[in-house]
Amino acid sequence: MKNCIFCKIVTRELPCYKIYEDKNFLAFLDIQPISKGHTLIIPKKHYNTFLETPVEILSAMTSIIHKVGQSILKTTGADGLNFGLNNGAAAGQIIMHTHFHIIPRFNGDGLHTWPSVKCSEEEFKNISEKIKNNLIN
Amino acid sequence: MKNCIFCKIVTRELPCYKIYEDKNFLAFLDIQPISKGHTLIIPKKHYNTFLETPVEILSAMTSIIHKVGQSILKTTGADGLNFGLNNGAAAGQIIMHTHFHIIPRFNGDGLHTWPSVKCSEEEFKNISEKIKNNLIN
Repeated sequence: MKNCIFCKIVTRELPCYKIYEDKNFLAFLDIQPISKGHTLIIPKKHYNTFLETPVEILSAMTSIIHKVGQSILKTTGADGLNFGLNNGAAAGQIIMHTHFHIIPRFNGDGLHTWPSVKCSEEEFKNISEKIKNNLIN
Repeated sequence: MKNCIFCKIVTRELPCYKIYEDKNFLAFLDIQPISKGHTLIIPKKHYNTFLETPVEILSAMTSIIHKVGQSILKTTGADGLNFGLNNGAAAGQIIMHTHFHIIPRFNGDGLHTWPSVKCSEEEFKNISEKIKNNLIN
């Protein structure tokens, strides 16, 4: 897609620190890393978000994510990894081209700071019923 | 696995707010939600972490994650979703049974606060080369 930074990385109009490439997928370093070794994995074809990406492509991406994750763990000596995908600007998605993050984590790095919210029994029941009912079969 | 809370949810020894269930997977509400509607998706079979889970199982999970994600977005009216998996205690994994998080996000909720680190050109080059070389073919 025109004006998409990741599409330009795919076509080599823009450079990247490449980790992995095959016919359908590309992995490269995030240049604004949360920690060193932070890597992005994208489908070469443009889709705006995870939910707009066909399931077959996401399923095939899984083996690349798994393989790259193993290498990042080995390479960085990290104690753990965060795998994440932000769907939509409200969720922190900056480039509107589907991409998975893999972020090396170290004991005591203090990065994981999301607070939880209180939910009543009634609220849990209501919302689980509603999500169940909205599932597309 | 004995003493695994999620295995006990699978066998119904412990309750949950169920969203989805089939032969291999189960989705239910996180009882310490980051936001209301925060859902977990697990393989019924016990694996400690994402990297220890067979790729075939993770690939099959993708369609469930996609489907449940769509329903959460519709149900909660969220502006976005975070999809995430924490691999290892250092990454924030609390229950050692592979699980994906889906977290509803709203414009301006202020949750996404991870800072980035500075990396030199040299560091980017070095680490990308090393991760590439450590990939298992």
